[in-house]
Amino acid sequence: MDKKHRVIDWIHENYPKGVKLLQKLIQEPSKRGNEGGAQAIIIEKCRELGLELDIWEIGDDELKNHPQFHCDRSDFKGNPNLVAIKKGEGFGKSILLNGHIDVVPEGNQNDWEMDPFSGKVMNGKVFGRGSTDMKGGNVSLLLAIEAIMASGIMLKGDMIFQSVIEEESGGAGTLAAVLRGYRADGAIIPEPTNMKIFPLQQGSLWFRLTVKGKSAHAGTRYEGVSAIEQSVIVMEAIRDLENRRNAALTHPLYENIPIPIPINLGKIHGGEWPSSVPDTVVLEGRLGVAPFETVDEAKDSLKACIEKLNSSCDWFRNKPVELEFFGARWLPGHIDLEHPFLRTVQAAYKEKMNQEAKLEASPWATDGGYLSGIGGIPTIVFGPGKTELAHDANEYIEIEKMIEAAQIIAITILDWCEVSEE
Amino acid sequence: MDKKHRVIDWIHENYPKGVKLLQKLIQEPSKRGNEGGAQAIIIEKCRELGLELDIWEIGDDELKNHPQFHCDRSDFKGNPNLVAIKKGEGFGKSILLNGHIDVVPEGNQNDWEMDPFSGKVMNGKVFGRGSTDMKGGNVSLLLAIEAIMASGIMLKGDMIFQSVIEEESGGAGTLAAVLRGYRADGAIIPEPTNMKIFPLQQGSLWFRLTVKGKSAHAGTRYEGVSAIEQSVIVMEAIRDLENRRNAALTHPLYENIPIPIPINLGKIHGGEWPSSVPDTVVLEGRLGVAPFETVDEAKDSLKACIEKLNSSCDWFRNKPVELEFFGARWLPGHIDLEHPFLRTVQAAYKEKMNQEAKLEASPWATDGGYLSGIGGIPTIVFGPGKTELAHDANEYIEIEKMIEAAQIIAITILDWCEVSEE
Repeated sequence: MDKKHRVIDWIHENYPKGVKLLQKLIQEPSKRGNEGGAQAIIIEKCRELGLELDIWEIGDDELKNHPQFHCDRSDFKGNPNLVAIKKGEGFGKSILLNGHIDVVPEGNQNDWEMDPFSGKVMNGKVFGRGSTDMKGGNVSLLLAIEAIMASGIMLKGDMIFQSVIEEESGGAGTLAAVLRGYRADGAIIPEPTNMKIFPLQQGSLWFRLTVKGKSAHAGTRYEGVSAIEQSVIVMEAIRDLENRRNAALTHPLYENIPIPIPINLGKIHGGEWPSSVPDTVVLEGRLGVAPFETVDEAKDSLKACIEKLNSSCDWFRNKPVELEFFGARWLPGHIDLEHPFLRTVQAAYKEKMNQEAKLEASPWATDGGYLSGIGGIPTIVFGPGKTELAHDANEYIEIEKMIEAAQIIAITILDWCEVSEE
Repeated sequence: MDKKHRVIDWIHENYPKGVKLLQKLIQEPSKRGNEGGAQAIIIEKCRELGLELDIWEIGDDELKNHPQFHCDRSDFKGNPNLVAIKKGEGFGKSILLNGHIDVVPEGNQNDWEMDPFSGKVMNGKVFGRGSTDMKGGNVSLLLAIEAIMASGIMLKGDMIFQSVIEEESGGAGTLAAVLRGYRADGAIIPEPTNMKIFPLQQGSLWFRLTVKGKSAHAGTRYEGVSAIEQSVIVMEAIRDLENRRNAALTHPLYENIPIPIPINLGKIHGGEWPSSVPDTVVLEGRLGVAPFETVDEAKDSLKACIEKLNSSCDWFRNKPVELEFFGARWLPGHIDLEHPFLRTVQAAYKEKMNQEAKLEASPWATDGGYLSGIGGIPTIVFGPGKTELAHDANEYIEIEKMIEAAQIIAITILDWCEVSEE
């Protein structure tokens, strides 16, 4: 207990170092293709801490040929992935601490009340693109690691810190780290969860439906078949599939969620001319993937739905609706509610905050899908950022939350990896 | 009867002059903004015939300020309208013979088996852009006029020939002629009707509906409102309006038409991103206008439908569907089935063809809407061209039909305007 208090106190006393580090990280606009500058600051910090470093540019054939690699970027030069390890003494459980260094673009500068890459500190908050998503969470990880090491504590299990690129574009950075062989007995990703714990994460992928009609002059529209009207039938089939998929999903964390895994139709485009019956409509949408199924299973359910529709009447038999999957895909993730790693994080939360952690099902995926789905690593998403500020203008993180998350994560590490008594 | 036979025989013997005239007209590609060349040929022909000519460039303030002027062209220089008159002796009924000189673009040259502006003659047909729509019909008019004059016949009523621009872009040429004061007791427009008589013509105008939703992340789509789903409700309201409008329409010529005045939804566009709930959908369509109503009455019925929808539930009360009318509009037209001018054309048809003329309701408008709706002139659309070839590649007209139409129109003129016995 004494050691644990030393660690917690160290974080409390040294947090200004974390704030300065966060400011420096925000001041490096690590948008896609430009992650190198911010990554260099992380690397330098890990070197100071005396961690074993593995720095590499991703993009080898194993990665590019992997069925879960959905990335339109070919050049990773100068923007490496980093894994930094503090080996334990042995016979302990390892922990993986994963954060992404890439940030989404700042959007319209006029929507910001300050320079989005200033890292300005005001009213206990650090402002800037990436503060909440998720450089603030990364700093929580580094504060936890440094606190443990500065307190002279030796762990039994390994601490594996990862600073990856490409999360915002589909997760090729974490996938590359998994393929490089990194595994652990538990993983934390401090994405912005409002300090809630996300044991379930919805995956997703995009699909495109092309619906055919038959053109005719509007004045004799009864001689044609409107692809817009046919699309309404397709939408009904999609809604029916969504109902069936969600009815089959029972989990305590979904009890109060109206639609745990929605199928969203986000775009529609069809027809060329007001005076013609439209002969084609294209619908694009997002298929939610349940935490307990694979992306392929979700794809199969949509395929079966469209196949059934295409055999349901003469029109669709002759002009079948075309289905394709495109763009990035995000793997779902889940950890059993009884899993000891989840229990450990919950206990750490309670120890620090004096109340039970809130568990919630995440409506979106993180790199956790790669860690658990491909790497088989029990993974929890828990972090100090504000969910609703991610990708928004005037993004900020509360310094107090960043400290509390660092302390909860430090307690988790000490309990999970175990402190060596020697 | 002797005079009538002279006229019919003259056309039969002199039709090659008509074919040559048509070839010359086709060889002048009188696309929008370039009508002057073809118009010059018509003017020269009318001058030879000794008609009184009124040649003017349209676009004065009276035209531009007219509520039915919906034209995005500002420059009419060098591309005049023409009215050419043969005054009658007096105390007879006048006839207006109206044709447009403009043609639509030829489209993709590769779809044509010949130069679209060659006027090539093959197998009794003249090929080329505008042959059927409607330079062939114009030549029928000129053959009829020339035959009467060459036969030394003096009419009691006036013959008013019009060669107008802009029909294909909304009818500003004919509107200008109406505003210039030209009226008659009956009018024929030889648009391509497959030798059928169109006593009813559907009008139309374009509308745009903007349907609002509320954006949200696809993973929590239940927190948003899909503008695509709201659009389905709007479409149902439109379909209901179409049913009501058509149920109210009873006319013998509509007995076998499934939807006499359709409301067509021709374009749909909405949403920006597969993973977002779409917050706006724009629908564009064409509202068919009944031959017996005004464009304003049709607009009012759609406005009332959308207003009713907008008061039907909280969502639309707060986010009303926006309705606007845009683009060109086409006035409907009709002539009473008992009207003596229609009877005269029917009788002329029977006299020449030895069978009853087929009457049909036209699913689209012509410049006839301006003649009848603004000018108050009883108007019939009847011509030699093939409806289905209009605007298509490899457009042609059958020379025989052009001759027959000229003869039927000549008989109509003689019967309607009456031959002077002096």
